Amino acid sequence: MNLLLLEPEDIVAPGRAIVKGRRLTHVQDVHKAEIGHTLRVGELNGLMGEAIITRLQKDVLELDFTLDTEPPSSLPVTVLLALPRPKMLKRTLQTLAAMGVKKIVLMNTYRVEKSFWQSPWLKPEAVREQLILGLEQARDTVLPEVILEKRFKPFVEDRLPEMSQGMRKLVAHPKTDELCPSDINVPTVLAIGPEGGFIPYEVERLVEYGFECVHLGPRILRVETAVPVLLSRLFH
Amino acid sequence: MNLLLLEPEDIVAPGRAIVKGRRLTHVQDVHKAEIGHTLRVGELNGLMGEAIITRLQKDVLELDFTLDTEPPSSLPVTVLLALPRPKMLKRTLQTLAAMGVKKIVLMNTYRVEKSFWQSPWLKPEAVREQLILGLEQARDTVLPEVILEKRFKPFVEDRLPEMSQGMRKLVAHPKTDELCPSDINVPTVLAIGPEGGFIPYEVERLVEYGFECVHLGPRILRVETAVPVLLSRLFH
Repeated sequence: MNLLLLEPEDIVAPGRAIVKGRRLTHVQDVHKAEIGHTLRVGELNGLMGEAIITRLQKDVLELDFTLDTEPPSSLPVTVLLALPRPKMLKRTLQTLAAMGVKKIVLMNTYRVEKSFWQSPWLKPEAVREQLILGLEQARDTVLPEVILEKRFKPFVEDRLPEMSQGMRKLVAHPKTDELCPSDINVPTVLAIGPEGGFIPYEVERLVEYGFECVHLGPRILRVETAVPVLLSRLFH
Repeated sequence: MNLLLLEPEDIVAPGRAIVKGRRLTHVQDVHKAEIGHTLRVGELNGLMGEAIITRLQKDVLELDFTLDTEPPSSLPVTVLLALPRPKMLKRTLQTLAAMGVKKIVLMNTYRVEKSFWQSPWLKPEAVREQLILGLEQARDTVLPEVILEKRFKPFVEDRLPEMSQGMRKLVAHPKTDELCPSDINVPTVLAIGPEGGFIPYEVERLVEYGFECVHLGPRILRVETAVPVLLSRLFH
Protein backbone atom coordinates (compact mmCIF):
# COMPACT_ATOMS: atom_id res chain seq x y z
CA MET A 1 0.00 0.00 0.00
CA ASN A 2 1.91 3.02 -1.28
CA LEU A 3 -1.10 5.28 -0.93
CA LEU A 4 -3.88 5.17 1.64
CA LEU A 5 -7.10 5.76 -0.29
CA LEU A 6 -9.79 7.62 1.62
CA GLU A 7 -13.39 6.79 0.84
CA PRO A 8 -16.15 9.40 1.25
CA GLU A 9 -17.39 7.77 4.48
CA ASP A 10 -13.89 8.02 6.04
CA ILE A 11 -13.91 11.81 5.89
CA VAL A 12 -15.48 13.02 9.10
CA ALA A 13 -14.68 16.72 8.73
CA PRO A 14 -12.78 18.86 6.19
CA GLY A 15 -9.17 17.59 6.29
CA ARG A 16 -9.89 14.91 8.89
CA ALA A 17 -10.47 11.19 8.32
CA ILE A 18 -11.05 8.11 10.42
CA VAL A 19 -9.92 4.80 8.93
CA LYS A 20 -10.69 1.27 10.13
CA GLY A 21 -10.40 -2.31 8.96
CA ARG A 22 -7.82 -3.56 6.39
CA ARG A 23 -6.13 -0.18 5.89
CA LEU A 24 -5.76 0.38 9.62
CA THR A 25 -4.25 -3.09 10.06
CA HIS A 26 -1.84 -2.45 7.17
CA VAL A 27 -0.70 0.90 8.61
CA GLN A 28 -0.11 -0.77 11.99
CA ASP A 29 1.46 -4.06 10.90
CA VAL A 30 3.31 -3.22 7.71
CA HIS A 31 4.06 0.50 7.94
CA LYS A 32 4.51 0.18 11.73
CA ALA A 33 3.31 3.77 11.92
CA GLU A 34 2.92 5.84 15.06
CA ILE A 35 1.20 9.06 16.09
CA GLY A 36 2.91 12.00 14.37
CA HIS A 37 4.05 9.98 11.37
CA THR A 38 3.02 11.12 7.91
CA LEU A 39 1.36 8.92 5.30
CA ARG A 40 0.64 9.44 1.63
CA VAL A 41 -3.10 9.61 1.13
CA GLY A 42 -5.54 10.19 -1.69
CA GLU A 43 -9.26 10.79 -1.91
CA LEU A 44 -11.06 8.21 -4.02
CA ASN A 45 -11.53 9.79 -7.47
CA GLY A 46 -9.86 12.94 -6.16
CA LEU A 47 -6.52 14.53 -5.29
CA MET A 48 -3.54 13.06 -3.44
CA GLY A 49 -1.51 14.49 -0.59
CA GLU A 50 -0.18 13.84 2.89
CA ALA A 51 -1.69 13.03 6.23
CA ILE A 52 -0.43 13.17 9.80
CA ILE A 53 -1.52 10.45 12.19
CA THR A 54 -3.29 12.16 15.09
CA ARG A 55 -4.71 9.05 16.78
CA LEU A 56 -3.79 5.39 16.43
CA GLN A 57 -5.59 2.76 18.46
CA LYS A 58 -6.39 -0.90 18.02
CA ASP A 59 -9.54 -0.11 16.08
CA VAL A 60 -9.16 3.44 14.82
CA LEU A 61 -6.71 5.52 12.83
CA GLU A 62 -7.33 9.26 12.76
CA LEU A 63 -5.64 11.46 10.19
CA ASP A 64 -5.32 15.16 9.45
CA PHE A 65 -4.76 15.46 5.72
CA THR A 66 -4.04 17.96 2.96
CA LEU A 67 -4.70 17.13 -0.69
CA ASP A 68 -2.88 19.10 -3.38
CA THR A 69 -1.60 16.75 -6.09
CA GLU A 70 -3.31 15.39 -9.19
CA PRO A 71 -3.23 11.60 -9.59
CA PRO A 72 -0.96 10.30 -12.38
CA SER A 73 -2.33 10.41 -15.91
CA SER A 74 -4.28 7.40 -17.08
CA LEU A 75 -3.74 5.28 -20.17
CA PRO A 76 -5.95 6.14 -23.18
CA VAL A 77 -7.16 2.58 -23.50
CA THR A 78 -10.22 0.43 -23.05
CA VAL A 79 -9.28 -3.18 -22.35
CA LEU A 80 -11.64 -5.93 -23.53
CA LEU A 81 -10.62 -8.98 -21.59
CA ALA A 82 -12.02 -12.46 -22.03
CA LEU A 83 -13.03 -13.34 -18.47
CA PRO A 84 -10.02 -15.14 -16.93
CA ARG A 85 -10.20 -17.81 -14.24
CA PRO A 86 -10.90 -16.31 -10.79
CA LYS A 87 -7.34 -16.34 -9.42
CA MET A 88 -6.01 -14.74 -12.58
CA LEU A 89 -8.93 -12.28 -12.62
CA LYS A 90 -8.00 -10.93 -9.20
CA ARG A 91 -4.38 -10.31 -10.11
CA THR A 92 -5.22 -8.96 -13.56
CA LEU A 93 -7.71 -6.45 -12.16
CA GLN A 94 -5.03 -5.24 -9.75
CA THR A 95 -2.52 -4.96 -12.59
CA LEU A 96 -4.93 -3.10 -14.89
CA ALA A 97 -5.76 -0.63 -12.11
CA ALA A 98 -2.09 -0.22 -11.17
CA MET A 99 -1.07 0.51 -14.76
CA GLY A 100 -3.70 3.24 -15.20
CA VAL A 101 -6.42 1.54 -17.27
CA LYS A 102 -9.75 3.24 -16.53
CA LYS A 103 -12.20 1.18 -18.58
CA ILE A 104 -12.28 -2.61 -18.48
CA VAL A 105 -14.78 -4.87 -20.21
CA LEU A 106 -14.83 -8.46 -18.97
CA MET A 107 -16.44 -10.36 -21.80
CA ASN A 108 -17.50 -13.84 -22.64
CA THR A 109 -15.88 -15.77 -25.47
CA TYR A 110 -16.19 -19.38 -26.61
CA ARG A 111 -13.22 -20.57 -24.56
CA VAL A 112 -14.23 -18.83 -21.32
CA GLU A 113 -15.39 -21.55 -18.93
CA LYS A 114 -19.04 -20.99 -17.98
CA SER A 115 -18.23 -21.52 -14.29
CA PHE A 116 -16.00 -18.42 -14.28
CA TRP A 117 -19.14 -16.28 -14.47
CA GLN A 118 -20.33 -17.74 -11.15
CA SER A 119 -17.16 -16.71 -9.28
CA PRO A 120 -17.70 -14.64 -6.12
CA TRP A 121 -14.71 -12.59 -7.31
CA LEU A 122 -16.98 -11.09 -9.96
CA LYS A 123 -19.30 -9.49 -7.42
CA PRO A 124 -19.10 -5.68 -7.58
CA GLU A 125 -17.59 -5.35 -4.09
CA ALA A 126 -14.93 -8.00 -4.85
CA VAL A 127 -14.01 -6.37 -8.18
CA ARG A 128 -13.86 -3.00 -6.46
CA GLU A 129 -11.53 -4.36 -3.76
CA GLN A 130 -9.01 -5.62 -6.33
CA LEU A 131 -9.12 -2.32 -8.20
CA ILE A 132 -8.53 -0.42 -4.94
CA LEU A 133 -5.52 -2.66 -4.18
CA GLY A 134 -4.09 -1.80 -7.61
CA LEU A 135 -4.64 1.94 -7.05
CA GLU A 136 -3.04 1.77 -3.59
CA GLN A 137 -0.03 -0.04 -5.07
CA ALA A 138 0.49 2.41 -7.93
CA ARG A 139 -0.51 5.64 -6.11
CA ASP A 140 -3.57 6.53 -8.10
CA THR A 141 -7.05 7.55 -6.93
CA VAL A 142 -9.27 7.12 -9.97
CA LEU A 143 -11.36 3.94 -9.81
CA PRO A 144 -11.62 2.16 -13.18
CA GLU A 145 -15.02 1.30 -14.61
CA VAL A 146 -15.64 -2.42 -15.07
CA ILE A 147 -18.37 -3.66 -17.41
CA LEU A 148 -19.48 -7.31 -17.61
CA GLU A 149 -20.55 -8.56 -21.04
CA LYS A 150 -21.81 -12.12 -20.76
CA ARG A 151 -22.66 -12.50 -24.45
CA PHE A 152 -20.01 -11.93 -27.09
CA LYS A 153 -22.13 -11.33 -30.18
CA PRO A 154 -24.58 -8.73 -28.87
CA PHE A 155 -21.72 -6.89 -27.19
CA VAL A 156 -19.58 -6.77 -30.34
CA GLU A 157 -22.47 -5.92 -32.64
CA ASP A 158 -24.54 -3.57 -30.51
CA ARG A 159 -22.27 -1.83 -28.02
CA LEU A 160 -18.64 -2.13 -29.16
CA PRO A 161 -19.01 0.08 -32.29
CA GLU A 162 -20.05 3.08 -30.22
CA MET A 163 -17.58 2.32 -27.41
CA SER A 164 -14.67 2.15 -29.88
CA GLN A 165 -15.62 5.03 -32.14
CA GLY A 166 -12.59 7.03 -33.31
CA MET A 167 -10.22 4.72 -31.44
CA ARG A 168 -7.53 2.41 -32.77
CA LYS A 169 -8.69 -1.19 -32.35
CA LEU A 170 -6.23 -4.01 -31.68
CA VAL A 171 -6.75 -7.66 -30.88
CA ALA A 172 -3.86 -9.70 -29.45
CA HIS A 173 -3.84 -12.86 -31.53
CA PRO A 174 -0.85 -15.15 -32.07
CA LYS A 175 -1.89 -16.20 -35.57
CA THR A 176 -0.93 -13.06 -37.44
CA ASP A 177 2.26 -11.66 -38.97
CA GLU A 178 1.74 -8.19 -37.53
CA LEU A 179 3.92 -7.51 -34.48
CA CYS A 180 2.20 -5.37 -31.85
CA PRO A 181 3.13 -1.72 -32.59
CA SER A 182 4.92 0.35 -29.98
CA ASP A 183 4.37 3.82 -28.57
CA ILE A 184 1.17 4.47 -30.45
CA ASN A 185 -0.15 6.68 -27.63
CA VAL A 186 -3.57 7.17 -29.25
CA PRO A 187 -6.96 6.20 -27.81
CA THR A 188 -7.11 2.45 -28.26
CA VAL A 189 -9.38 -0.50 -27.65
CA LEU A 190 -7.31 -3.58 -26.90
CA ALA A 191 -8.91 -7.04 -26.95
CA ILE A 192 -7.19 -9.90 -25.13
CA GLY A 193 -8.43 -13.46 -25.48
CA PRO A 194 -8.84 -16.30 -23.00
CA GLU A 195 -6.48 -19.21 -22.32
CA GLY A 196 -6.40 -21.02 -25.66
CA GLY A 197 -7.20 -17.78 -27.49
CA PHE A 198 -10.15 -16.44 -29.44
CA ILE A 199 -11.79 -18.84 -31.89
CA PRO A 200 -11.62 -17.88 -35.59
CA TYR A 201 -15.28 -16.73 -35.58
CA GLU A 202 -14.54 -14.25 -32.80
CA VAL A 203 -11.44 -12.89 -34.51
CA GLU A 204 -13.42 -12.51 -37.76
CA ARG A 205 -16.17 -10.54 -35.99
CA LEU A 206 -13.60 -8.25 -34.35
CA VAL A 207 -11.78 -7.71 -37.67
CA GLU A 208 -15.12 -6.98 -39.33
CA TYR A 209 -15.64 -4.21 -36.76
CA GLY A 210 -12.26 -2.66 -37.52
CA PHE A 211 -9.83 -4.51 -35.23
CA GLU A 212 -6.24 -5.23 -36.35
CA CYS A 213 -4.66 -8.51 -35.24
CA VAL A 214 -1.27 -8.11 -33.55
CA HIS A 215 1.04 -10.66 -31.97
CA LEU A 216 3.69 -10.54 -29.28
CA GLY A 217 6.24 -12.94 -30.73
CA PRO A 218 6.47 -16.72 -30.54
CA ARG A 219 6.09 -16.93 -26.77
CA ILE A 220 2.66 -17.61 -25.32
CA LEU A 221 2.14 -15.50 -22.21
CA ARG A 222 -0.40 -15.85 -19.44
CA VAL A 223 -2.97 -13.06 -19.45
CA GLU A 224 -1.48 -11.55 -16.30
CA THR A 225 1.87 -11.21 -18.10
CA ALA A 226 0.42 -10.30 -21.51
CA VAL A 227 -1.46 -7.34 -20.03
CA PRO A 228 1.61 -5.43 -18.76
CA VAL A 229 3.62 -6.46 -21.83
CA LEU A 230 0.98 -5.11 -24.23
CA LEU A 231 0.28 -1.92 -22.28
CA SER A 232 3.93 -1.00 -21.77
CA ARG A 233 4.58 -1.63 -25.44
CA LEU A 234 1.64 0.45 -26.69
CA PHE A 235 1.92 3.42 -24.34
CA HIS A 236 4.89 5.35 -23.01
CA MET B 1 1.07 -26.13 -20.46
CA ASN B 2 1.53 -25.18 -24.11
CA LEU B 3 4.56 -27.43 -24.48
CA LEU B 4 5.28 -30.75 -22.77
CA LEU B 5 8.93 -30.60 -21.74
CA LEU B 6 10.76 -33.92 -21.83
CA GLU B 7 13.52 -34.47 -19.31
CA PRO B 8 16.48 -36.77 -20.10
CA GLU B 9 15.08 -39.53 -17.87
CA ASP B 10 11.75 -39.50 -19.76
CA ILE B 11 13.40 -40.57 -23.01
CA VAL B 12 13.44 -44.36 -23.02
CA ALA B 13 14.54 -44.85 -26.63
CA PRO B 14 15.30 -42.57 -29.58
CA GLY B 15 12.02 -40.80 -30.37
CA ARG B 16 10.13 -42.45 -27.52
CA ALA B 17 9.32 -41.06 -24.08
CA ILE B 18 7.39 -42.13 -21.01
CA VAL B 19 5.96 -39.35 -18.86
CA LYS B 20 4.46 -39.57 -15.36
CA GLY B 21 3.37 -37.32 -12.54
CA ARG B 22 2.24 -33.69 -12.97
CA ARG B 23 2.60 -33.61 -16.75
CA LEU B 24 0.64 -36.84 -17.18
CA THR B 25 -2.15 -35.50 -14.96
CA HIS B 26 -2.24 -32.24 -16.94
CA VAL B 27 -2.45 -34.05 -20.28
CA GLN B 28 -5.31 -36.18 -18.94
CA ASP B 29 -7.29 -33.59 -17.01
CA VAL B 30 -6.70 -30.34 -18.87
CA HIS B 31 -5.86 -31.39 -22.43
CA LYS B 32 -8.26 -34.36 -22.14
CA ALA B 33 -5.97 -36.13 -24.58
CA GLU B 34 -6.43 -39.66 -25.94
CA ILE B 35 -4.33 -42.24 -27.74
CA GLY B 36 -3.51 -41.01 -31.24
CA HIS B 37 -3.69 -37.32 -30.29
CA THR B 38 -0.67 -35.13 -30.99
CA LEU B 39 1.02 -32.89 -28.43
CA ARG B 40 3.66 -30.20 -28.75
CA VAL B 41 6.79 -31.37 -27.01
CA GLY B 42 10.32 -30.16 -26.43
CA GLU B 43 13.48 -31.69 -25.04
CA LEU B 44 14.85 -29.81 -22.06
CA ASN B 45 17.61 -27.52 -23.40
CA GLY B 46 16.99 -28.96 -26.87
CA LEU B 47 14.69 -28.82 -29.88
CA MET B 48 10.89 -28.72 -30.03
CA GLY B 49 8.49 -30.77 -32.13
CA GLU B 50 5.43 -32.99 -32.00
CA ALA B 51 4.52 -36.23 -30.30
CA ILE B 52 1.80 -38.82 -30.84
CA ILE B 53 0.29 -40.45 -27.78
CA THR B 54 0.83 -44.20 -28.14
CA ARG B 55 -0.24 -45.24 -24.63
CA LEU B 56 -2.25 -43.42 -21.99
CA GLN B 57 -3.03 -45.07 -18.70
CA LYS B 58 -3.72 -43.87 -15.20
CA ASP B 59 -0.03 -43.76 -14.36
CA VAL B 60 1.81 -43.64 -17.67
CA LEU B 61 1.84 -41.59 -20.86
CA GLU B 62 3.89 -42.96 -23.75
CA LEU B 63 4.83 -40.75 -26.67
CA ASP B 64 6.49 -41.14 -30.07
CA PHE B 65 8.10 -37.82 -30.85
CA THR B 66 10.00 -35.94 -33.54
CA LEU B 67 12.03 -32.83 -32.74
CA ASP B 68 12.86 -30.40 -35.55
CA THR B 69 12.31 -26.81 -34.36
CA GLU B 70 14.63 -24.43 -32.53
CA PRO B 71 13.22 -22.88 -29.36
CA PRO B 72 12.39 -19.15 -29.59
CA SER B 73 15.28 -16.73 -29.21
CA SER B 74 16.12 -15.59 -25.71
CA LEU B 75 16.41 -12.05 -24.37
CA PRO B 76 19.97 -10.65 -24.17
CA VAL B 77 19.56 -9.78 -20.53
CA THR B 78 20.77 -10.75 -17.09
CA VAL B 79 18.21 -9.82 -14.44
CA LEU B 80 19.46 -8.93 -10.96
CA LEU B 81 16.43 -9.21 -8.74
CA ALA B 82 16.29 -8.33 -5.06
CA LEU B 83 14.85 -11.51 -3.57
CA PRO B 84 11.06 -11.03 -3.47
CA ARG B 85 8.70 -12.57 -0.91
CA PRO B 86 8.08 -16.27 -1.61
CA LYS B 87 4.67 -15.99 -3.32
CA MET B 88 5.96 -13.23 -5.57
CA LEU B 89 9.20 -15.16 -6.18
CA LYS B 90 7.28 -18.13 -7.59
CA ARG B 91 5.29 -16.06 -10.05
CA THR B 92 8.25 -13.88 -10.99
CA LEU B 93 10.45 -16.88 -11.77
CA GLN B 94 7.69 -18.21 -14.03
CA THR B 95 7.37 -14.84 -15.75
CA LEU B 96 11.13 -14.45 -16.25
CA ALA B 97 11.35 -17.94 -17.76
CA ALA B 98 8.28 -17.36 -19.93
CA MET B 99 9.67 -14.11 -21.32
CA GLY B 100 12.99 -15.66 -22.33
CA VAL B 101 15.39 -14.48 -19.62
CA LYS B 102 18.24 -17.01 -19.30
CA LYS B 103 20.26 -15.61 -16.42
CA ILE B 104 18.71 -14.55 -13.13
CA VAL B 105 20.56 -13.39 -10.03
CA LEU B 106 18.49 -13.36 -6.84
CA MET B 107 20.36 -11.00 -4.56
CA ASN B 108 20.14 -9.63 -1.10
CA THR B 109 19.57 -5.94 -0.47
CA TYR B 110 18.91 -3.96 2.69
CA ARG B 111 15.12 -4.12 2.32
CA VAL B 112 14.94 -7.85 1.57
CA GLU B 113 13.47 -9.52 4.66
CA LYS B 114 15.94 -12.00 6.10
CA SER B 115 13.24 -14.66 6.40
CA PHE B 116 12.82 -14.73 2.60
CA TRP B 117 16.17 -16.55 2.36
CA GLN B 118 14.74 -19.41 4.44
CA SER B 119 11.84 -20.04 2.05
CA PRO B 120 11.48 -23.60 0.75
CA TRP B 121 10.68 -21.99 -2.62
CA LEU B 122 14.38 -21.12 -2.90
CA LYS B 123 15.47 -24.76 -2.92
CA PRO B 124 16.97 -25.73 -6.28
CA GLU B 125 14.18 -28.20 -7.11
CA ALA B 126 11.49 -25.63 -6.25
CA VAL B 127 13.17 -22.91 -8.33
CA ARG B 128 13.55 -25.37 -11.19
CA GLU B 129 9.87 -26.29 -11.06
CA GLN B 130 8.77 -22.66 -11.43
CA LEU B 131 11.17 -22.14 -14.33
CA ILE B 132 9.83 -25.27 -16.04
CA LEU B 133 6.26 -23.99 -15.61
CA GLY B 134 7.31 -20.75 -17.31
CA LEU B 135 8.97 -22.60 -20.20
CA GLU B 136 5.92 -24.86 -20.65
CA GLN B 137 3.68 -21.79 -20.73
CA ALA B 138 5.76 -19.89 -23.29
CA ARG B 139 6.89 -22.86 -25.44
CA ASP B 140 10.60 -22.71 -24.75
CA THR B 141 13.04 -25.45 -23.75
CA VAL B 142 16.10 -23.64 -22.44
CA LEU B 143 16.27 -23.63 -18.64
CA PRO B 144 17.47 -20.31 -17.20
CA GLU B 145 20.40 -20.21 -14.82
CA VAL B 146 19.57 -18.91 -11.34
CA ILE B 147 22.30 -17.64 -9.02
CA LEU B 148 21.74 -16.78 -5.35
CA GLU B 149 23.80 -13.91 -3.94
CA LYS B 150 23.13 -13.54 -0.24
CA ARG B 151 25.50 -10.63 0.31
CA PHE B 152 25.09 -7.45 -1.73
CA LYS B 153 28.52 -5.86 -1.36
CA PRO B 154 30.77 -8.81 -2.23
CA PHE B 155 28.52 -9.65 -5.17
CA VAL B 156 28.57 -6.12 -6.58
CA GLU B 157 32.29 -5.60 -5.97
CA ASP B 158 33.72 -9.01 -6.79
CA ARG B 159 31.46 -10.75 -9.29
CA LEU B 160 29.19 -8.20 -10.95
CA PRO B 161 31.97 -6.36 -12.87
CA GLU B 162 32.94 -9.49 -14.78
CA MET B 163 29.32 -10.64 -15.21
CA SER B 164 28.33 -7.28 -16.71
CA GLN B 165 31.42 -6.63 -18.83
CA GLY B 166 30.56 -5.02 -22.17
CA MET B 167 26.86 -4.91 -21.30
CA ARG B 168 24.55 -1.96 -20.79
CA LYS B 169 23.72 -1.65 -17.11
CA LEU B 170 20.36 -0.33 -15.90
CA VAL B 171 18.84 -0.08 -12.46
CA ALA B 172 15.10 0.53 -12.11
CA HIS B 173 14.84 3.31 -9.56
CA PRO B 174 11.92 5.71 -9.16
CA LYS B 175 14.09 8.61 -7.94
CA THR B 176 15.62 9.62 -11.25
CA ASP B 177 14.57 11.81 -14.19
CA GLU B 178 15.67 9.27 -16.80
CA LEU B 179 12.74 7.36 -18.32
CA CYS B 180 13.56 3.73 -19.09
CA PRO B 181 14.74 3.61 -22.73
CA SER B 182 12.89 1.45 -25.25
CA ASP B 183 14.01 -1.06 -27.88
CA ILE B 184 17.65 -0.99 -26.88
CA ASN B 185 18.12 -4.63 -27.91
CA VAL B 186 21.72 -4.82 -26.68
CA PRO B 187 23.13 -7.14 -24.01
CA THR B 188 21.92 -5.65 -20.76
CA VAL B 189 22.12 -6.18 -17.03
CA LEU B 190 18.89 -5.01 -15.41
CA ALA B 191 18.71 -4.54 -11.64
CA ILE B 192 15.28 -4.49 -9.95
CA GLY B 193 14.94 -3.60 -6.29
CA PRO B 194 12.78 -5.00 -3.49
CA GLU B 195 9.47 -3.68 -2.16
CA GLY B 196 10.39 -0.23 -0.87
CA GLY B 197 13.27 0.01 -3.35
CA PHE B 198 17.04 0.03 -3.11
CA ILE B 199 18.53 2.21 -0.37
CA PRO B 200 20.71 5.15 -1.51
CA TYR B 201 23.92 3.26 -0.62
CA GLU B 202 22.96 0.41 -2.93
CA VAL B 203 22.07 2.74 -5.80
CA GLU B 204 25.39 4.56 -5.32
CA ARG B 205 27.36 1.29 -5.48
CA LEU B 206 25.54 0.24 -8.67
CA VAL B 207 26.09 3.66 -10.27
CA GLU B 208 29.77 3.48 -9.29
CA TYR B 209 29.98 0.21 -11.21
CA GLY B 210 28.46 1.74 -14.35
CA PHE B 211 24.71 1.39 -13.84
CA GLU B 212 22.29 4.05 -15.16
CA CYS B 213 19.17 4.78 -13.09
CA VAL B 214 15.93 4.61 -15.07
CA HIS B 215 12.31 4.99 -13.98
CA LEU B 216 8.98 3.75 -15.27
CA GLY B 217 6.83 6.80 -14.62
CA PRO B 218 5.00 7.91 -11.49
CA ARG B 219 3.24 4.58 -10.85
CA ILE B 220 4.81 2.14 -8.42
CA LEU B 221 4.45 -1.39 -9.75
CA ARG B 222 4.81 -4.70 -7.96
CA VAL B 223 7.89 -6.62 -9.03
CA GLU B 224 5.78 -9.17 -10.89
CA THR B 225 4.33 -6.35 -13.00
CA ALA B 226 7.54 -4.32 -13.27
CA VAL B 227 9.42 -7.29 -14.74
CA PRO B 228 7.25 -7.71 -17.86
CA VAL B 229 6.88 -3.93 -18.21
CA LEU B 230 10.66 -3.39 -18.18
CA LEU B 231 11.50 -6.34 -20.42
CA SER B 232 8.87 -5.56 -23.04
CA ARG B 233 10.00 -1.96 -23.09
CA LEU B 234 13.72 -2.74 -23.44
CA PHE B 235 13.52 -5.56 -25.97
CA HIS B 236 11.38 -6.04 -29.05
